[in-house]
Amino acid sequence: MVQMLRLQFVRVSLLASKSSTTLPLNLTPISTQLPRTTRLRSQMASYSTSSHSSKLLFRQLFEKESSTYTYLLADVSHPIKPAVLIDPVDRTVDRDLSLIHELGLKLIYAMNTHVHADHVTGTGLIKSKVPDVKSVISKASGATADLYVEPGDKVSFGDLFLEVRATPGHTLGCVTYVTGDASDQPQPRMAFTGDALLIRGCGRTDFQGGSSEQLYKSVHSQIFTLPKDTFIYPAHDYKGFTVSTVEEEMKYNPRLTKNEETFKNIMANLNLSYPKMIDVAVPANLVCGIQSKAI
Amino acid sequence: MVQMLRLQFVRVSLLASKSSTTLPLNLTPISTQLPRTTRLRSQMASYSTSSHSSKLLFRQLFEKESSTYTYLLADVSHPIKPAVLIDPVDRTVDRDLSLIHELGLKLIYAMNTHVHADHVTGTGLIKSKVPDVKSVISKASGATADLYVEPGDKVSFGDLFLEVRATPGHTLGCVTYVTGDASDQPQPRMAFTGDALLIRGCGRTDFQGGSSEQLYKSVHSQIFTLPKDTFIYPAHDYKGFTVSTVEEEMKYNPRLTKNEETFKNIMANLNLSYPKMIDVAVPANLVCGIQSKAI
Repeated sequence: MVQMLRLQFVRVSLLASKSSTTLPLNLTPISTQLPRTTRLRSQMASYSTSSHSSKLLFRQLFEKESSTYTYLLADVSHPIKPAVLIDPVDRTVDRDLSLIHELGLKLIYAMNTHVHADHVTGTGLIKSKVPDVKSVISKASGATADLYVEPGDKVSFGDLFLEVRATPGHTLGCVTYVTGDASDQPQPRMAFTGDALLIRGCGRTDFQGGSSEQLYKSVHSQIFTLPKDTFIYPAHDYKGFTVSTVEEEMKYNPRLTKNEETFKNIMANLNLSYPKMIDVAVPANLVCGIQSKAI
Repeated sequence: MVQMLRLQFVRVSLLASKSSTTLPLNLTPISTQLPRTTRLRSQMASYSTSSHSSKLLFRQLFEKESSTYTYLLADVSHPIKPAVLIDPVDRTVDRDLSLIHELGLKLIYAMNTHVHADHVTGTGLIKSKVPDVKSVISKASGATADLYVEPGDKVSFGDLFLEVRATPGHTLGCVTYVTGDASDQPQPRMAFTGDALLIRGCGRTDFQGGSSEQLYKSVHSQIFTLPKDTFIYPAHDYKGFTVSTVEEEMKYNPRLTKNEETFKNIMANLNLSYPKMIDVAVPANLVCGIQSKAI
């Protein structure tokens, strides 16, 4: 299987040579504001089936033990069908690579929204199996990766792109990846919020440089300002929800609909137990999930 | 919460009076073939993000213990936003009804693809909490319900509808619900296959009138004949996949890509253990999941 993948990647290695820059990252900042083509549609918030694009192939994948969602996005209108994986998990890497192979995609980026504390990222393992793939994480995360993103950067795959928004608070380096704001990008937009905003919840703020004040500001300034019909795809769900919208969370999130003081009180009194994976996961995830390097 | 739901349903009870027929079911058979507007798109198989419709609100919901998917579909262009739930689970009924309430939908049908052996259906519990809701199952299932469907029936909610296709083999009464074949229906089409076709798998055929021969014929004649880009939404997934397409399963399903004899051999030699829930679930599910009635 891995052999087959490697062969395929050799055959379609065009993009690899384009994207084989090391640091600093070959990503262009979004300097000019694109036309807000989604404005009118925001009245239709939560009234759409799902994002529509003739270019985007999209798959949501679930890892049951840590209740983690991994997201696969690819531009299938592009000759090599470049793909990105957001928040892959080590134990489901083979499943993900097998699917990518079956769909005829070329994985170029394995991205993380942040340094996870509850599972080991699959990025390192993916890189060991498919060497062309570049790992991506925010510069503010403090983790090592092939490519670092900063707020305002664009991560392009084919003609599609993700915007990088800084959403610290769960950890210092959390980012949200948002599909592009342009008429040729998926409609409605899609926000991959990591642990910053969960469906009817949010990530804890008591470890890894977390701050409830910062999280409140992040969600309100970077996510709740998106069009109301933007789909929210979180890094986890523990109740079986798969997707929400900005409008739904602005109306029904039991924490983030409160004022800042109440939110900070809620977060200060969660009385959560010490994360059982944190002492393994965080050191590993600081180096792309390769645990031998973490010792 | 339940009180609020009831009030809301009283307020918007227009459709309830329209759909309050008991047996025989007020569903119209699809006697004339609608224009196949999806034909050209089939070249794009597996190249779409997801189904697109300005009318359809769609949510996939997961029940972790039995790895069951429940599907919520609603016509949000209709004044009362009529909704259907496919394969609800008893233990997640409150979650589902809460979401339906938050989204402002009016649940009219709680439908099953078949008499499940691995979990108790939520239809009976839903009816006890929201009395207007009608339970729906195939006539061939032998179960009791408010409304029975037969192959060729259309289940309408607002301006949207589901076709009923007979896909026996996992059980004698299995059906697949498929979104309508018309330009005003979701594109690509969506098939809710129950346990007939799973992602890279299929339901077992050794209980409840199961037949591997019948299942093979069902999938090949009723599902693999749909446009290749039709999304496959199964009743379960155990590996974290959320969706597939007809094209993908025709290419990569490890069982149903084989010839019929090989398939029958595979199914005859699965050596699966006795389903742990079957003696509770099947009697209960024959009467809408209300276990007191099953004794």
